[in-house]
Amino acid sequence: MRMYDIIRHKRDGMVLTPQEINHFVAGYSDGTIPDYQAAALAMAIFLRGMTSRETANLTMEMSISGDTVDLSSISGIKVDKHSTGGVGDKTTLAVVPLVASLGVPVPKMSGRGLGHTGGTLDKLESIPGLSVQIESERFLEIARTVGCAVVGQTANLVPADKKLYALRDVTATIDCIPLIASSIMSKKMAAGADAILLDVKCGSGAFMKTRERAIELAVSMVGIGEHVGRRTVALITDMDQPLGRAVGNSLEVMEACDVLKGTAPEDIAETCVELAANMLVLAERGDLSECRALVRGQIANGRGFAKLCEMVEAQGGDPLALADYARFKQASAVHEVRAKGSGYVVGIDAEAVGMASATLGAGREKIEDDIDPSAGIMLAVKKGDFVEPGDLIATLYTSSEKTIPDAEEQLREAYTLGAEKPDPTPHFIARVSADGVEDLG
Amino acid sequence: MRMYDIIRHKRDGMVLTPQEINHFVAGYSDGTIPDYQAAALAMAIFLRGMTSRETANLTMEMSISGDTVDLSSISGIKVDKHSTGGVGDKTTLAVVPLVASLGVPVPKMSGRGLGHTGGTLDKLESIPGLSVQIESERFLEIARTVGCAVVGQTANLVPADKKLYALRDVTATIDCIPLIASSIMSKKMAAGADAILLDVKCGSGAFMKTRERAIELAVSMVGIGEHVGRRTVALITDMDQPLGRAVGNSLEVMEACDVLKGTAPEDIAETCVELAANMLVLAERGDLSECRALVRGQIANGRGFAKLCEMVEAQGGDPLALADYARFKQASAVHEVRAKGSGYVVGIDAEAVGMASATLGAGREKIEDDIDPSAGIMLAVKKGDFVEPGDLIATLYTSSEKTIPDAEEQLREAYTLGAEKPDPTPHFIARVSADGVEDLG
Repeated sequence: MRMYDIIRHKRDGMVLTPQEINHFVAGYSDGTIPDYQAAALAMAIFLRGMTSRETANLTMEMSISGDTVDLSSISGIKVDKHSTGGVGDKTTLAVVPLVASLGVPVPKMSGRGLGHTGGTLDKLESIPGLSVQIESERFLEIARTVGCAVVGQTANLVPADKKLYALRDVTATIDCIPLIASSIMSKKMAAGADAILLDVKCGSGAFMKTRERAIELAVSMVGIGEHVGRRTVALITDMDQPLGRAVGNSLEVMEACDVLKGTAPEDIAETCVELAANMLVLAERGDLSECRALVRGQIANGRGFAKLCEMVEAQGGDPLALADYARFKQASAVHEVRAKGSGYVVGIDAEAVGMASATLGAGREKIEDDIDPSAGIMLAVKKGDFVEPGDLIATLYTSSEKTIPDAEEQLREAYTLGAEKPDPTPHFIARVSADGVEDLG
Repeated sequence: MRMYDIIRHKRDGMVLTPQEINHFVAGYSDGTIPDYQAAALAMAIFLRGMTSRETANLTMEMSISGDTVDLSSISGIKVDKHSTGGVGDKTTLAVVPLVASLGVPVPKMSGRGLGHTGGTLDKLESIPGLSVQIESERFLEIARTVGCAVVGQTANLVPADKKLYALRDVTATIDCIPLIASSIMSKKMAAGADAILLDVKCGSGAFMKTRERAIELAVSMVGIGEHVGRRTVALITDMDQPLGRAVGNSLEVMEACDVLKGTAPEDIAETCVELAANMLVLAERGDLSECRALVRGQIANGRGFAKLCEMVEAQGGDPLALADYARFKQASAVHEVRAKGSGYVVGIDAEAVGMASATLGAGREKIEDDIDPSAGIMLAVKKGDFVEPGDLIATLYTSSEKTIPDAEEQLREAYTLGAEKPDPTPHFIARVSADGVEDLG
C-alpha cells in the first residue's frame, strides 16, 4: 500500500478503506509518511469529505496511536463529558461532582485554555495546592474511591492527533467536520469512558458559528460513538454571550461552587442541571426529567458540593477555599467598568470578553505562556438587562494593573446596547443522539 | 501576507491575486514556505482549479524563478516547439532543421526521456560525438550562425517548477490541467522564444488519455501564451500507437534523417511537414498551405537534411553518421518477432511498446539511469496492416541479450489483432489557437 494512492483515492472522492486509514495513521505517527503527503490528504479530506464510517475508522486508528486509559478497574458505566470550548464555561467543575455524587463514576481528562477560551485544568489549578498532573494509577484510585477526578492528559495520549492537528493548523485544514470530529472523539476514545456527553458550543464566541454547523459536527461525533459502541449524546448550546457571569480561572471556580451550593444565578445553575441530567441518562439512571430531579436533589442536599470538596482534597487542593473564597490568590487590582450610554444589552460578544479576560492575564496565546489564576471579569449585566449611564457593567480583576485600559476597551466593545429589549435566547438549542436531532430552541 | 491565507483562499474557491501567487512562488523557491503548505495548496488547486489569468500568473512567476534565456541577440521571430511526450516521437529532430533551413531561428532546450517516453536529448546523444551540454554563449552562437541548436536545460532553469513538480509527484497532484500547463509553459517562457508550437499527445500512450483532456490542456497552454504575449498554437496528435516505425534512440535519429532525405514512410513524413508548417505560420511565413509547400521543398532539395548535418557538427557530432548509419554504435543482439496468429492490427499500445523498448535498454526508470543508444524496436507492421503467422512484426535491438524474452513478451502484448480492418485514425486530431479549437480528425 502506498500513501500516494491513498491521497489519490480521496482526491477522487473515493471512500478510504479501513486498511488505508490504518496505513496513513500508523505511517504518519511513526514518521514514515512525511508532512507534505499528510497535508495533501488533509486538504483532499477537507474538500471531498468523509463518510461516517471513514470518520469512525480514522477516530479509532488515532485513538490507539499512543497510550490508552483502561478504566475496567472502576465498576459501573463511566461517563465522560467534553465541551468544544466556550467563554465562561465552568460547567465541568459543577457537573462532574454532581454526577459522581449519584454513584456514576466520572474519571475525566481535560485540557488547557488557548486564545479566548478557558481550560478546565487552568481553572482547577487556581485552587490552592491542587494538582492536575497525576499519575495513571493514582488517577484511577481517586476515581474508584471518590468517584471522580479531573486530570491532565498523559503526554502520549493520541500522538497521531497531536501531530495531525499541528499540521492542519498551518495548512488551513482545521475547519473540517470529519477532522474536527475525529480529533475530539479520538481523545475521548483513548480516555476510556463508556459513554460521552458532548457540549457543542454555537455562536459568535464558538468555533462553530452557526446552528447548522454545530449540528453537523454533533451528528458526526454521535455517529462515531455509534460506530464504535460508545453511547454519545451532544447538546448544542448557545455561545452568543459568555456562560454565566464569571470569566477567568478562580472566578469561574467560585461560580461553579455557587452552583453546587444553590446560590448561583438561575441560568448557569439550570445549564449545569441539564448537562448533569444528560450524563445520568447516559448512565441509565432514568429519563431526563427523573435525572433532573436527582441532580436538583444533590444541589439541595449539598452532596454535589461535598463531592467537589472530596475530589479537590484527593488531588492535593485546599477544600476550605471552596467555602472561603478569600483563600484563593487575590487580584492586586480591581477595576469597575460603568456604562456610558443607556439601553438594553442586546448582545455580548463572547470572543471579545474572552480576549479581554486574556488581556488581564487569565488566558494565554501560546501553550507555554503562564496565566494569572486571579485574573478575569465578573459580568454585572447580561443580555436583556437594561443599563443607564454610570451602571456597573463588569468588574475587572488582574495582578497587572497596566493591562486594564486595553481590557476595558475590549470589554466595552463586546457589549452592544439597543433601544428594544431582545427576545430571550435559550441556552440549549438542540439535542443530538442516536435517535436523531431534537430541537430545543 | 501569509501562506496560510493563500491556501485558505484557494481552498474556498477564490481566485488568487498576482501578489498571492508571487508570494507563494518566491517563498517556495527560497524555502521559507515549507513543502507541507505547498502540498496543501497544490491539492486545493487540483480540486478547485485556477482561472486562465491565475494560471498565466503562476507560469510567469515560475518562469522567472531562476535563469532565463535572452534570445535578443538572434534576429527574427524565434519559434520553439514542445511535445508532451510520446513513444517514437522523433519529430523534433526533423522539424527543427526544416524550419531553420527556411531562416526561422529555432534555439531549443529539450529534455530527457523517463518511463516509456523517449527524450530528444537522449536521441541526439546517440549521434557519435554530439554534446547537448553546451554553455549559454556557445548555444546562442550556434543558433545565430546555424539557425538552430538543441541543448539541455541549464541547471537553474525554472527551479520553482522543478521543486513543485517533485512535490506534486508524491502528493497525487500531477494530473491537474492548470499545474501541468504552467509547468510546461514556464519552461518555454524561460527559454525565451517569441512563439511556441505545442504537440499535445492524446491516447493510450500519452499522459492525456482522451481528446477532451488533451484539448483542455491545449486550451490552457494557448491561453497562457495569449496572456503573456507569446503566440502559441497547439496540435492535438494521436498517441494510440507509436509515431512512425522506430522506437529507441539511434533508431529514431535514423528515421528522422529518412524524413529529411524524403525516404521515410509517408505517415511520419507528413506529420513532420505539418508540425514544421505550423511553426512557419507562427513565424509569419504565410498560411498553412503555403508553409506546407515551403517545407516539402526543403525536403525535396535536401536543405533540411543539410541543416541537421550543420547543427550536429556545430554541437560536436559526426555528421557523416547521418548519411552512413553504420557509424552509429550498433546493437550486439538483433531479434525478430514474428506473428503467431493472423488478422488485422487493430491497435498497438504505445505505452507497452515504450516499455518494451526501455526493457531493451533504450529507456530509464530513474533520471540517473544510463541508457543504451543502440537499443530499441523497429515496428514492421502498424495499425491497419494484415499479418499471417510467421510474418515479421518487429525487430528488437539491444546490447543486453538477456532482456529480449521480456521485451518480446511486452511487445507481443502491445499488439491487438482483429478480424476486421480498422478505420484509419488521423494523426492530427485538433488544432488549438487563439482563434479557438479547430477539429482536424
